[in-house]
Amino acid sequence: MVGSLNGIKVLDFSRAYSGPFCTLMLKDLGAEIIKVELTGSGDTVRRDYPVTKGGESGTFIILNRGKKSITLNLKSVKGREICKKLVEKVDVLIENYSPGTMEKLGLGHEELCQQNPRLVYASISGFGHSGPYRDYVSYDPIAQAMGGMTSVTGFPDSPPIKCGVSIADFSTGLYTALAITAALNHRNNTGEGQWIDMSLQDCVWQFSSIEFSPPYFLNGKILPRLGNGHPSMAPGNLYVAKDGPVLISTGVLNQVLRLYKVMGREDLCNTPLAANQSERYQYKPQIDQAVGEWTKTKTVEEVLAILRKEEIPCSPVPSFDKVCEDPQLKSREMVIEVEQEMSGSVKVPGSLFKMSKTPGYIKYPAPILGENNQEILSGMLGFSEDEIAQFSSDGVI
Amino acid sequence: MVGSLNGIKVLDFSRAYSGPFCTLMLKDLGAEIIKVELTGSGDTVRRDYPVTKGGESGTFIILNRGKKSITLNLKSVKGREICKKLVEKVDVLIENYSPGTMEKLGLGHEELCQQNPRLVYASISGFGHSGPYRDYVSYDPIAQAMGGMTSVTGFPDSPPIKCGVSIADFSTGLYTALAITAALNHRNNTGEGQWIDMSLQDCVWQFSSIEFSPPYFLNGKILPRLGNGHPSMAPGNLYVAKDGPVLISTGVLNQVLRLYKVMGREDLCNTPLAANQSERYQYKPQIDQAVGEWTKTKTVEEVLAILRKEEIPCSPVPSFDKVCEDPQLKSREMVIEVEQEMSGSVKVPGSLFKMSKTPGYIKYPAPILGENNQEILSGMLGFSEDEIAQFSSDGVI
Repeated sequence: MVGSLNGIKVLDFSRAYSGPFCTLMLKDLGAEIIKVELTGSGDTVRRDYPVTKGGESGTFIILNRGKKSITLNLKSVKGREICKKLVEKVDVLIENYSPGTMEKLGLGHEELCQQNPRLVYASISGFGHSGPYRDYVSYDPIAQAMGGMTSVTGFPDSPPIKCGVSIADFSTGLYTALAITAALNHRNNTGEGQWIDMSLQDCVWQFSSIEFSPPYFLNGKILPRLGNGHPSMAPGNLYVAKDGPVLISTGVLNQVLRLYKVMGREDLCNTPLAANQSERYQYKPQIDQAVGEWTKTKTVEEVLAILRKEEIPCSPVPSFDKVCEDPQLKSREMVIEVEQEMSGSVKVPGSLFKMSKTPGYIKYPAPILGENNQEILSGMLGFSEDEIAQFSSDGVI
Repeated sequence: MVGSLNGIKVLDFSRAYSGPFCTLMLKDLGAEIIKVELTGSGDTVRRDYPVTKGGESGTFIILNRGKKSITLNLKSVKGREICKKLVEKVDVLIENYSPGTMEKLGLGHEELCQQNPRLVYASISGFGHSGPYRDYVSYDPIAQAMGGMTSVTGFPDSPPIKCGVSIADFSTGLYTALAITAALNHRNNTGEGQWIDMSLQDCVWQFSSIEFSPPYFLNGKILPRLGNGHPSMAPGNLYVAKDGPVLISTGVLNQVLRLYKVMGREDLCNTPLAANQSERYQYKPQIDQAVGEWTKTKTVEEVLAILRKEEIPCSPVPSFDKVCEDPQLKSREMVIEVEQEMSGSVKVPGSLFKMSKTPGYIKYPAPILGENNQEILSGMLGFSEDEIAQFSSDGVI
């Protein structure tokens, strides 16, 4: 399978969510990932519930499929020596330890980028490697809060609420994958590698600032939480139908006019409730009330049938089991199966990179801990079987 | 300023959020973006509130700073001819029209990739260009719902709620930027361009499936909504202190033990509430209760002071104005000012690409509609002043 990053080798010291998601994306795109795990225990996500009948974590499989796993005791001199030998052979290194940890191990970016000037070395941390919060320990929920996403999510009169998904971790992984890939382009042009310092808080702020910073920076105001509303769409909300909620989102005036028409409310078409977007938005409460009065007379399916016919954007809010069985996602091969040696066939998400020449490909199992020790230590570094056996009995691997 | 994508030219037909965010990322990384806007009105976000004193939309400025703007009437033969001439001169084309629209204009990927085989052509749409939902009109809230994010966000007994930020749009833009940059790497190796078909629903599902699909795929179960809880962290929640909410997240057992100790609850250290992560998580309600009983005796500042000293992950949930003034974000230059010709100095988010050799750079203003017509039509395509004047009077630009 030809991937757009074929030939790129990544040495991956990251654990948990953010870094492994970054290297999952790079794997989807064709890179080779060498996951370096702690001797004995490995990535903590290996133990996250739920697990397969073979005892493997479902989330671990999703995040790590297609990667190679080696174990290394980074506290041993020999383990760190092996790391440095590997650094000579790879294009990219990624780590998500607390700032300072890799330096203490003698594996910091200054040292390793000097050793291999073509190396692209990416660090992910909660707040980045500079600034007053640099040493605060952090996880996804903290980054969501400190980046501003939590305060704008929820209902106006409810507590703020984090996005249910670990979006700070995953999006930082994605931003990092982009930075790495762009840095590889720079290296193609110049031969030089570099260090990349990514912060979870920065990444969340990048997203939340687009819609929510202008009210503050321009007018000194903050918006109330919008529930299921949108900061610029009206009609745009989760409305109540006879048998459940139904989502209606309008982005352009023609959709609004068509909606009022099918609601039997042509009378609204000459009112400010049908004005241009920014003016209309001032009447959001009245608009939501009018739409809600109509939806409550219909079932969800009736609303969807009527609105889809008129090309008015709408959807149900499917429960997660329905999403997992969604015909569209299935038709796009966004649910696939991988064969795990210990667990048999396991359903996992497919790759979203629908690229005509180098489609994302991820139909690989996740590795058993240390599965590729022999291959990497012997094939890539040239250690003998005796040496490798010695590493094993010394607790180096 | 050296950027990692210097020399890459992008022809950008996209509007609103997803596509413009993609090209903002590419601009941060050094690419040249030529934003093609509808003659007369331009990108609808130009009119989104709030606006500066000069009448420019704050969100538009954030999403489009550093880009060049040209106007083209794609309904005119001449306008489409100019597009095709531009396609010869660029590396990347991006569009986020409904599937089929570019084809109807004679600007579909098959035609243009044949014309310029080195072209990387990226399409973004609600559900992608294939499958049963291909022609459903969609916006961010619909993608959040249909990709499964909405159903897992909210409190167990509240309605599902979308992430307050337009995360489907922005993350799809980000995934697309990664796909494009990887495709450029493939082109460096092989000379061949390709078509990329990105779906908002696919992108949301990629995120939500990691934590939430294993319970369904492995056990046929779906998790209840977790409020401010996390699917694998306990303690991990928004707890109530004397004067407001405080966030505590623990990822490893040592943090949990240190927390129980500072709470004066060493008695918990030998109970299942201090077991390994997956076992401990079964006792999340009891754990949350014990932590909440402690936090309610302290102010938020007291909790933070105690926990930070012990390196236990915690944070406040700052309101959005406080996030905009956050010292960490400021120290990382995540709030900068750009000089808009019509509006003067405007505060916007900075670039999160902290790269040692090619730092993200975005201290540019957003363009006035059609600001670069002359430069592109004359400088890039060689049209004379008379021809350009004719285009203008014919309504082509």
